[in-house]
This record gives sequence, structure tokens and C-alpha cells, in this order.
Amino acid sequence: METGKKNRDMSKAAILLSGGMDSATLLHYMKKTIGCSEIDALTFYYGQKHSREMECAEWQATSAGIRAHVQIDLSCYRELIAGASALTDTQITLPDLTDLSHDDLDQPPSYVPNRNMVFLSLAVAYAEARGIEQVFFGAQMHDRYGYWDCTPEFIERMKSVLALGRRKTVLLRAPFIAMSKSEELLIGLKAGVDYAHTWTCYRGQKKACGSCPACVERLSAFEKVGVRDPVLYKKSAAASF
Amino acid sequence: METGKKNRDMSKAAILLSGGMDSATLLHYMKKTIGCSEIDALTFYYGQKHSREMECAEWQATSAGIRAHVQIDLSCYRELIAGASALTDTQITLPDLTDLSHDDLDQPPSYVPNRNMVFLSLAVAYAEARGIEQVFFGAQMHDRYGYWDCTPEFIERMKSVLALGRRKTVLLRAPFIAMSKSEELLIGLKAGVDYAHTWTCYRGQKKACGSCPACVERLSAFEKVGVRDPVLYKKSAAASF
Repeated sequence: METGKKNRDMSKAAILLSGGMDSATLLHYMKKTIGCSEIDALTFYYGQKHSREMECAEWQATSAGIRAHVQIDLSCYRELIAGASALTDTQITLPDLTDLSHDDLDQPPSYVPNRNMVFLSLAVAYAEARGIEQVFFGAQMHDRYGYWDCTPEFIERMKSVLALGRRKTVLLRAPFIAMSKSEELLIGLKAGVDYAHTWTCYRGQKKACGSCPACVERLSAFEKVGVRDPVLYKKSAAASF
Repeated sequence: METGKKNRDMSKAAILLSGGMDSATLLHYMKKTIGCSEIDALTFYYGQKHSREMECAEWQATSAGIRAHVQIDLSCYRELIAGASALTDTQITLPDLTDLSHDDLDQPPSYVPNRNMVFLSLAVAYAEARGIEQVFFGAQMHDRYGYWDCTPEFIERMKSVLALGRRKTVLLRAPFIAMSKSEELLIGLKAGVDYAHTWTCYRGQKKACGSCPACVERLSAFEKVGVRDPVLYKKSAAASF
């Protein structure tokens, strides 16, 4: 799909930076392993119930020493999807992993309608406008269980749309898409990511809850690599190993 | 691609309504010919140099008697693509059709980076959140010359991404994509569209310029069907036939 698009400048890149574990890991990986020297990170505010992730995004952006951290007010998106996601609507309960019914597993209440296409399309527009030829996205293998827009098929088909561009096309890159969260974590630890400044919990309380699907998945990754998660958890049982 | 998605409710629909000729025609066509009874129209403000199109969008929405006209402030998009399009940046000149160089034809200065993916992804999110299972898009055959995101391939590949959705997926529909602007105009005239309240000119002056690529294309369509364009033009020569 990328043949014929030669002389791509791989030193410049844009990234969707949420402040979660995946995108923070990716940011440092891009800098230290891929060798991107000029990185523009995009963080969207779209009415998330809490701001913990965004504070972490800012911290990670500063820590990685990137070219620009662009914070985008996309609150109109929240209005467009009002009532449809537990991540943005206070009326919808965020269930613990153990409370998720079998029917919910393919698309849990934390799913946000078409979010990744919305974010990626805006990131691609930004990149195109600035002659940046690659956009990075931190989706990893685990999320495919509940989110169709975190699957390898989603990435491939989005690439196929973008390949139609006529000038310098933007290449979508998701290097963790076939990796488990623990494999990704190992990469991040090697790259020196400070995970104390990443936020994964769906609930934005002082301490991470330790029981929502995102917390359980994160804790499991730390357990697998045998490292203590530096984030404080409400449910200490879940974090003690 | 749509097999297995049965019991689709075809009475409800969303549409990208810009206030131009294509989307106004489509709106009335959906209502009168396709038989959509509940239509939600989405109009984006993204820093266009002029508001003529948006006023026309409002007029057409009222005239068609739709369920909701949602006007969305997407000015963040303008900031993201600053300096990249003559439609949103006052520093970039909008050329007449005759001034377009051969090199510009595949992507003229009026191209807006990744615009249609941005708009469609937000419209799909809105539709998904409300259980609307189809989103209409007024692209027609002519625009493929300069806009990769107005081509049948773009529509097909976007559909292919959306087909990955796991619950009720949103179907993208572009019924004019293989029609010329004059064929579309005939449909619109039959459906009773009042073209005095549509705005096509890239320049937002009191009268349409008659010489930008959009005006020339529009005038040519009216000429082909032998009907006078009710919009007033600055260059009367271009409009007299």
C-alpha cells in the first residue's frame, strides 16, 4: 500500500497522546527506539469525566522533550455522543470487570462511539497540514476484545483509506497492535517511562480503583513482568503481588 | 459488506449538510424519493471564510422539515490545519478555474486536509449514539478531479472500516457519487429544491463570483439542464445563457 510513496521523512511524527500507559510508552519508544526527532503530540479533551489522563499527557510530553504538545478542545464531540458512553456521561455506570455481562464484552459501556476514527482523522489532518508523514497510535492487542476500533483490521482499513491521498500521504502506525500489554510494558520500562505519571483507571478518583477493566488489565501486565506498578490503588489487594 | 446486518431501520438518517448544492439536493432527495421520515442534519463550522453556506444550510433544513439541525462548532479543526487550505486561510488565494495550474488540478488550494473523513467520522459517532443506522454524504462525480476524499474509492474504503462495528453499524450512503452535477440537478429540480438558497461559490461575497472552480461547475450544470441558476453572479457573462 505504501509503494510509490518514496522519500518519506521518518524523523517527524505525530502521536495521539492520551496520558494512558499505551500512548506514554509509545511516545518514549518513538523517541528512543524508532528515532523520531521531532514529535508533535495531540491530546483531545472530549468531556472525559476526569482530567487525570490529561495531566499525565502533559507530564509525559514534557518528559519526552517533544516539539509540540497540542491540546485540543473537542467538547463538541461529547455533545454529539451524549448519553452513549460511560467515559463521558455521568448517568452511565462504569462497571467493574467482574460485573461485565457476557453480552457486554464485545462492546463494554466504556466504548466511545467511533472515537478512534474521530481522533485519527483529526490527527491526520494536522499531520497533512504540516508535512508530517506519519501518525502513531498506541492501541495494543488486548483492547480488541471490546473495541472494534482497536483491532489490526481497523488499522489496516484506515490505512487503506489514507493511501488514496494524492500528495504526501499520511502513514498510520500502530507498532503495539500485535503486542500484549505486558510486552509493551517491557518496552516502556526499557525506554525509561515513568509509569507513576500515566493514568489508566476509568474512574478519576485520587487513587486508581483497581477493579475496572482497565485497572485489572494494567495490574495484570505489571504482575506478568514482575514489577510493582507505581500508581496508588484503592483496592490494595488487587495491587499486591 | 452489509450482509448479516438485517433489520436496518431505513426511516431514520443523518446527513452532512453544508448548504451547498449537493447536500441540499440530497436532503430533499432523501425526504421525497428515498423516504427517510426522520432526518438529522449536521452542519460544521470549521472556520470557513464566509457564512453564506451555513445560512443556506439552515434555510434548507427548515424548508425540508427535518427532525433536527445540529450546528457544530469545530473551530479547533481550523486551528489544526492552519495555513493549509484556501477555504479557511485568508492568506491563501482562491484561484479562478482558469488560473489553476496543471499541477494543482489533482489537489487544488481549496482542498481541506482530510476534511471528509473528519466530518464523516463525527457524523457516524452522532448516528451511532442515537441508533441512526445511515449517514448520507452528497459527494458527486465531478469532484473526484481534485479531491481524493470525494471519490467512489474513498466511500467504499470508509464503508469497509465502518463495517467492522460490532453492534448496529452505520452505513455510509453517497447516492450521487456516480452522477454528474447536472444529473443531480435534475433530481433536485424534480424534488422541488429552491436553489436560490444554496451557496456554491468559494468566495463569500454578496454575489457569487462566477469564476472559481465551484461556480464554473455549478453554472455548467445549470446550462446543461437548460435552467437559469437563481443565484446572482458578479460576472453576468458566465451566468447568461
